[in-house]
Amino acid sequence: MAPIAIAMGDPAGIGPEIIAKAWEARTDRRQPAFVAVGDPRAIERVWDGPTLEVGTLAEADRAFSTALPILPIKNAGEITPGRPDADGARCALQSLEVAFGLARSGGAAALVTGPVSKAQLYSIGFTYPGQTEFVAERCGIARENAVMMLAGPTLRVVPITTHVPLAEVSPLLTIDLIVAKARVTARGLTRNFGIVRPRLAFAGFNPHAGESGTIGREEIEVITPAIARLRAEGIEAVGPFAADTMFYPRGRANYDVAMCCYHDQALVPLKTIHFDDGVNMTLGLPIVRTSPDHGTAFTVAGHNRAEPGAMIAAITMAGEAATRRSAADTG
Amino acid sequence: MAPIAIAMGDPAGIGPEIIAKAWEARTDRRQPAFVAVGDPRAIERVWDGPTLEVGTLAEADRAFSTALPILPIKNAGEITPGRPDADGARCALQSLEVAFGLARSGGAAALVTGPVSKAQLYSIGFTYPGQTEFVAERCGIARENAVMMLAGPTLRVVPITTHVPLAEVSPLLTIDLIVAKARVTARGLTRNFGIVRPRLAFAGFNPHAGESGTIGREEIEVITPAIARLRAEGIEAVGPFAADTMFYPRGRANYDVAMCCYHDQALVPLKTIHFDDGVNMTLGLPIVRTSPDHGTAFTVAGHNRAEPGAMIAAITMAGEAATRRSAADTG
Repeated sequence: MAPIAIAMGDPAGIGPEIIAKAWEARTDRRQPAFVAVGDPRAIERVWDGPTLEVGTLAEADRAFSTALPILPIKNAGEITPGRPDADGARCALQSLEVAFGLARSGGAAALVTGPVSKAQLYSIGFTYPGQTEFVAERCGIARENAVMMLAGPTLRVVPITTHVPLAEVSPLLTIDLIVAKARVTARGLTRNFGIVRPRLAFAGFNPHAGESGTIGREEIEVITPAIARLRAEGIEAVGPFAADTMFYPRGRANYDVAMCCYHDQALVPLKTIHFDDGVNMTLGLPIVRTSPDHGTAFTVAGHNRAEPGAMIAAITMAGEAATRRSAADTG
Repeated sequence: MAPIAIAMGDPAGIGPEIIAKAWEARTDRRQPAFVAVGDPRAIERVWDGPTLEVGTLAEADRAFSTALPILPIKNAGEITPGRPDADGARCALQSLEVAFGLARSGGAAALVTGPVSKAQLYSIGFTYPGQTEFVAERCGIARENAVMMLAGPTLRVVPITTHVPLAEVSPLLTIDLIVAKARVTARGLTRNFGIVRPRLAFAGFNPHAGESGTIGREEIEVITPAIARLRAEGIEAVGPFAADTMFYPRGRANYDVAMCCYHDQALVPLKTIHFDDGVNMTLGLPIVRTSPDHGTAFTVAGHNRAEPGAMIAAITMAGEAATRRSAADTG
């Protein structure tokens, strides 16, 4: 397998440190080869292990066992851990562009993105809600057909709606949207995880999943008809279930992914259980793309206290998915 | 301490079985003395341990070490585990009335309520949303001043709104409601748990707690002003925080109770972590009232498979709270 391209994220965040720590764990955690795309100084600031500036993925592959390969994208200004600025945002964006290009062209096996500061990106004119939407558009995929899935060792969740005010979710929840997201999710679980017949469990929108319509009607009018349509297509969709009884250990053993109506319904259980090793994977793309499910953690950056668990999990998941997809394509 | 009165709940549910199993665990789990209020046949159907019909709490107290004391409320019809009916609902309601009366009069140290079937209760004309509202009204407490708190060994949560459609929550969330619920919660934590200066952490309503108003404004317009008012009163209120980062182990170590905007925001993390030992406690009442945080489980009833963990935890918590309140009253 070709190396994985990792966009370093904001150079003042914890991205550089967790990439370096992931490289340190390459043998113990069986990390596939990867190349960091970003400013080498950002890594050298926070880590004194061996690095090697490379110009190609082949060089990165050769170097990986003895040094952390870095494909350099120079930051115009100073880099101070914990102090984000516009130069850093420009460097993060350019790193994302280059790393994306390596993955899209097939040179890199997959794309992993480090954490960025949305506030800084917005300040330099970035107009996407986040990296997911940026990557989807670069791939020529409509936003509603790119699906954000969060995954930890014992739970996968998909928020059907994401960064919208909670009071606006109900009108956005349509049969068409649910069906579209669920189709992409089902295909993605097969393609990236090798689950032949994935089980999709839907959470209700209201308390007790509406209790037969007495506490809200989204279940009856939208979610149940969407499930029926998916089942008619041969997708194993079940529910809607009361969200509060879906996520305890015996509950989550019953499905491959929980389809959730809104951001916190998905993210609260995922982060409650898998705070330090959650991975964000975008389904529905022609490339494999993952990222650690946490932010830049500016307050921690530069103190050698950042936890690399989620980055390691993101690299591992990307490598496994790339291997599986490549085998399916050629097999 | 006087015995605790336990309303048996629906005689066809798992209430009778888990009460009997709690009695079996009285020594190992250091259960305080209690009396079951309900039909002795419901317990004898599912358990062959020793029972004793009693007429007074003093008799119950004397019997407790050698037999499960039952204050009999006869069910008019047959009792079949797993098959609820109107007779059972009438028996459950009468048991609740009697057990409540014992606690309210001071004869019993506290009230624990077993699980009931709301559908059956509604069918016989019960007009309260649940037992909590029934008990609050019998105590002469306005509903908004009775607070439902769910508690497990590592997490306490209060849903500020409860069984309402999610799309209707935003207009219900007012500064006054939040302040009223928080005051009762703070007092309740001191009175029932002995926490001198309880820390109340508020969850945001929107994804990322609204991200400075870009994803919804309830945080800015309602929750933050409510927190300011509470702090001015000397209550240690903090937040609002992004809900998805509040409930992992290090997160929940920072507060005594999470104040949540809606049912699932509170119940999803609580049940994800403490499915088998969650307790529902009503704060703001002149009596101590708890219940196991689960339902009648009709599909399990009669098969000797019901988990008594939550009932045992409810009895233990009620006993500890009653002891603490009684010491505070006399001390």
